[in-house]
Amino acid sequence: MTASQASLYQTYFYREPEPWRLNPKMDQRDWRGVFPAMTTPFKEDLSVDYDAVERQAFWLISSGCTGLVALGSLGESPTLTAEEKIQILETCRRALGDRVPLVAGISGLATPEAVALAMAAESVGCDGLMVLPPYVYRGDWRETEAHLSAVFSATPLSSMLYNNPIAYGTDVTPEQLRQLVRHPNLHAVKESSGDIRRVTALREVLGDRLAIFVGMDDVVVESVAAGAVGWIAGLVNAFPAESVRLFELAQSGPSVELRDLYEWFLPLLRLDTVPKFVQLIKLVQAEVGKGSARVRPPRLELAGAELEQAHHLIQERLQRHMVSAV
Amino acid sequence: MTASQASLYQTYFYREPEPWRLNPKMDQRDWRGVFPAMTTPFKEDLSVDYDAVERQAFWLISSGCTGLVALGSLGESPTLTAEEKIQILETCRRALGDRVPLVAGISGLATPEAVALAMAAESVGCDGLMVLPPYVYRGDWRETEAHLSAVFSATPLSSMLYNNPIAYGTDVTPEQLRQLVRHPNLHAVKESSGDIRRVTALREVLGDRLAIFVGMDDVVVESVAAGAVGWIAGLVNAFPAESVRLFELAQSGPSVELRDLYEWFLPLLRLDTVPKFVQLIKLVQAEVGKGSARVRPPRLELAGAELEQAHHLIQERLQRHMVSAV
Amino acid sequence: MTASQASLYQTYFYREPEPWRLNPKMDQRDWRGVFPAMTTPFKEDLSVDYDAVERQAFWLISSGCTGLVALGSLGESPTLTAEEKIQILETCRRALGDRVPLVAGISGLATPEAVALAMAAESVGCDGLMVLPPYVYRGDWRETEAHLSAVFSATPLSSMLYNNPIAYGTDVTPEQLRQLVRHPNLHAVKESSGDIRRVTALREVLGDRLAIFVGMDDVVVESVAAGAVGWIAGLVNAFPAESVRLFELAQSGPSVELRDLYEWFLPLLRLDTVPKFVQLIKLVQAEVGKGSARVRPPRLELAGAELEQAHHLIQERLQRHMVSAV
Amino acid sequence: MTASQASLYQTYFYREPEPWRLNPKMDQRDWRGVFPAMTTPFKEDLSVDYDAVERQAFWLISSGCTGLVALGSLGESPTLTAEEKIQILETCRRALGDRVPLVAGISGLATPEAVALAMAAESVGCDGLMVLPPYVYRGDWRETEAHLSAVFSATPLSSMLYNNPIAYGTDVTPEQLRQLVRHPNLHAVKESSGDIRRVTALREVLGDRLAIFVGMDDVVVESVAAGAVGWIAGLVNAFPAESVRLFELAQSGPSVELRDLYEWFLPLLRLDTVPKFVQLIKLVQAEVGKGSARVRPPRLELAGAELEQAHHLIQERLQRHMVSAV
Repeated sequence: MTASQASLYQTYFYREPEPWRLNPKMDQRDWRGVFPAMTTPFKEDLSVDYDAVERQAFWLISSGCTGLVALGSLGESPTLTAEEKIQILETCRRALGDRVPLVAGISGLATPEAVALAMAAESVGCDGLMVLPPYVYRGDWRETEAHLSAVFSATPLSSMLYNNPIAYGTDVTPEQLRQLVRHPNLHAVKESSGDIRRVTALREVLGDRLAIFVGMDDVVVESVAAGAVGWIAGLVNAFPAESVRLFELAQSGPSVELRDLYEWFLPLLRLDTVPKFVQLIKLVQAEVGKGSARVRPPRLELAGAELEQAHHLIQERLQRHMVSAV
Repeated sequence: MTASQASLYQTYFYREPEPWRLNPKMDQRDWRGVFPAMTTPFKEDLSVDYDAVERQAFWLISSGCTGLVALGSLGESPTLTAEEKIQILETCRRALGDRVPLVAGISGLATPEAVALAMAAESVGCDGLMVLPPYVYRGDWRETEAHLSAVFSATPLSSMLYNNPIAYGTDVTPEQLRQLVRHPNLHAVKESSGDIRRVTALREVLGDRLAIFVGMDDVVVESVAAGAVGWIAGLVNAFPAESVRLFELAQSGPSVELRDLYEWFLPLLRLDTVPKFVQLIKLVQAEVGKGSARVRPPRLELAGAELEQAHHLIQERLQRHMVSAV
Repeated sequence: MTASQASLYQTYFYREPEPWRLNPKMDQRDWRGVFPAMTTPFKEDLSVDYDAVERQAFWLISSGCTGLVALGSLGESPTLTAEEKIQILETCRRALGDRVPLVAGISGLATPEAVALAMAAESVGCDGLMVLPPYVYRGDWRETEAHLSAVFSATPLSSMLYNNPIAYGTDVTPEQLRQLVRHPNLHAVKESSGDIRRVTALREVLGDRLAIFVGMDDVVVESVAAGAVGWIAGLVNAFPAESVRLFELAQSGPSVELRDLYEWFLPLLRLDTVPKFVQLIKLVQAEVGKGSARVRPPRLELAGAELEQAHHLIQERLQRHMVSAV
Repeated sequence: MTASQASLYQTYFYREPEPWRLNPKMDQRDWRGVFPAMTTPFKEDLSVDYDAVERQAFWLISSGCTGLVALGSLGESPTLTAEEKIQILETCRRALGDRVPLVAGISGLATPEAVALAMAAESVGCDGLMVLPPYVYRGDWRETEAHLSAVFSATPLSSMLYNNPIAYGTDVTPEQLRQLVRHPNLHAVKESSGDIRRVTALREVLGDRLAIFVGMDDVVVESVAAGAVGWIAGLVNAFPAESVRLFELAQSGPSVELRDLYEWFLPLLRLDTVPKFVQLIKLVQAEVGKGSARVRPPRLELAGAELEQAHHLIQERLQRHMVSAV
């Protein structure tokens, strides 16, 4: 991080840690269960709707979620200004109290930017970080490792590596993760490669050193069967109770209730794994009365046949849900 | 662009256009010849070395380049702060006077960010814009078109679309470009798909409406043969005279001098089309005494066998060059 | 099939079906359990070692396998002449008696070739067919469907579609399979896309209409958890008892024995899913004393560092196995 | 090649070379100009129409083609039986006399199959071979090199390597070709990677050791500009005079006539580089009255909207042609 950048970021972000933060309480064993990757609600003028942030965060943890991730991809992090990011974290912290861990998504084009955001997250009381490789530049392992290590070292916060080679072009393999676990605060990994074999391979290489989270909604049951202990979830933004129940059932092994719930949920869960997942999940939220479909450009709200098709799918699922709930 | 973001950006960037800018002088016919995508020189602490920016810009146009692009990928734009971007443009403007057009690379994660940067570029006296699709998000054509149009509409500056599907994941086809040319200030396209057929296809669909620039150093001669009239160049940062000569010869058709120069230059020109092109081109600059190899993270300077190999290639080329120049 | 080709193929292959074949006994419910994709043993001069075929087939079913596939990819089908294919099927039929179903892999560059091979397989007493899309040509669905339907219609034999988009370039989706099940003798599908989500999707679209087999050794446990009822297996050629046990355990749900056996087996099972899987599996067979490592060109036996590495992996696993078996 | 396979193939194919073949006359310098990859005409029952083969071959060389390739991909080689292949070569030989070289496409799933076909081609008087890497199996370089060398060594015939990594999955790089030129009868390379840079790279690595042919119709002019001396052509099957003229003009450097002819021809030439190129080129032949659109399965003739679109494109081009020819 350059001096000028560091000072630039510090001017904006850095605050003395709250006393209670000096002894971080989030640990490896806190990475368990369903953590929503929360969407970011916008007002009509596309400014952040902080009241809605607070309500949504509170509702999610009241429904049984065991943690919360703000500033993830689903939170449209790339479109948020630095100031907005801080204020969202502060709002979530307020909503959550210290009931469940608050995790900040850490991404960016440049290393100093990611480091500064991590420090800012610490300064506003986050418990954990979900760390991505750099955007755009697909470096070799030496470069990726340096970037990730800079972020892990920047704070004592409990950290998760987010591996999503399909969306971001950089793959961190189990063998490479083995080199990263020298960071004592690296506690978890979010697997979004889409290849179920990675869960087994992670356990083979790393044992229980890292908590394995599944990062794609439509392989959650299979991933739990293979050893995942947590879920960074998407559709949870509209269906928190159903998501928490699904995860619990998956942990208990095969059952008729699990099969039925998964069968009902799966067409919706698949919306989490396509490029327009943000638009789609926000649309589901809107249709169940828990948010607005508004997104920031370059994303645009769905329109035309695509909107029609998504709307039809959602309503058909809701209809079945009503019936089966009777 | 949201109101809050617009005002945020305006606070930082926006200035009243200089009077001479109200009548933009860069036109379609000014997109011709060799435009360096200038690297950004850093001091030891990785802050921008503005003196070096000025010297480098002046040297390049003194060597026959007919325009200059700042803030491109080669300029490590993703690692520059907004303030640095503005100051680099101002420095280049000062170095160039009004001898040749100054073009600003416009990229970003969010549409308002790109729009604000375009407006800022105008406010500091740039003549043209080189516009990229959004980083990271790979939208459909409706979304990509909206993003690009927002930028083209933001200023009256003469604009170039930069198409690089391999590096950025979004491909703008000739048919899609046909829809974009309703923007009267869209004057040029930089083709970096790596597929020579695109040059012919662009001419087929668009005739002479757009000036076609080749964006990959290692197909420059072939692209000129197919109809390209300009070159956004990389190795020019170390070899401006050679680059300008190569382009002139290519325009004159097959010759022994062209063949010999291309044959000598090609192993170096290929350094422009690999993921570490920034590190490699800055290394070449360092070895010819025209800059430093320093890069900002997440990029790291080359090391070990990779450095050795690059060094050997460069020296071998320089040695041949000396001999043939006798 | 052209007249000339049909007569050509009939001259070589076609025989009157045995009386007991007129009432095919293999049904959808027979597609269950572990079916080895048997390797083809060669003598020193690379001619087929039919005695070894017979011994190997007998050993496999004596170890608990519930079916046998000859002429699969693992059987180096592309290198076998038409005559050899027939003789291998006849040999297997003799070895198996009517204890378990014999399935013939049906592949080829041209549709008539595949049809003729299917008819020949019927004429020598096979119970089922494992049918691939055409080699090399990646047609659209209309063309792929026509090819597959020609093969399914050619005989009354119980048939499996083999879907392996990675190796063969054509993907048959669950929706497309829905169109194929109008063939009453299409009873099973072998899923080798490598995407565990396909198992769930197949059940969603097709219910229990087709028996789902997993076709990649290194996702067998996960696939059974997701609903697969059978396994076209590779390493079974060297470890039939272990493979059968693994499959049984997987069907019984999570257990310590399953976890331990899978953990031991997995590094070997992964050898089934790389381009040199034939060379690797035959090497494992050779090292456990159950076959030779010989392959036909264009495949060559492993050599140098690659051989050393594979040898080391195999011996390390065998060593552990011995110990744990004490 | 196994003994049994060798004898099998020899029984069918091998004949004593004609005396005039003992002193092969095709040399490196004969690989020049336009060589049609001839389509294979079928009768209504899809048997080969040998009379049409003869007429077509004669017409092509009468129009100025300097060589002829039979049994290429465009000739639907994968669907031809061994007997048909031989008879096609014999028919072409008869049609050509010794006016221009006759080249046989050599492809197959197994090495012995390719070797036997090469020997058979020699025995019926072919002058050259166009050799592909093996179908389906994507080996490493050691394996690919062994396959290719077996074919090059099998006869003294002048040989061309056909490199088409997109269609066949195996890429032979310029550096690898450098290892292959120890075969004295390897005289040419057909470049179908689609990357124009390969032409320059081949010349850089190999100088004039190999005659470079372009293998994709829609980069012919660009490839000649970069150094190609020949063209394995597709649309030539319908437009031989136009193809020969285009190639001659391309060799003479930029001209108005070249630009106009290429502009007219290009939409048709592009039909050569899509998966259905066989169906499309045969359709063009049918529409100009020089053949039938019939293809063998797994390819099917175009139908519906796709046929309509192709038909419209062809007629539109023909209409312009008529007019401009006045």
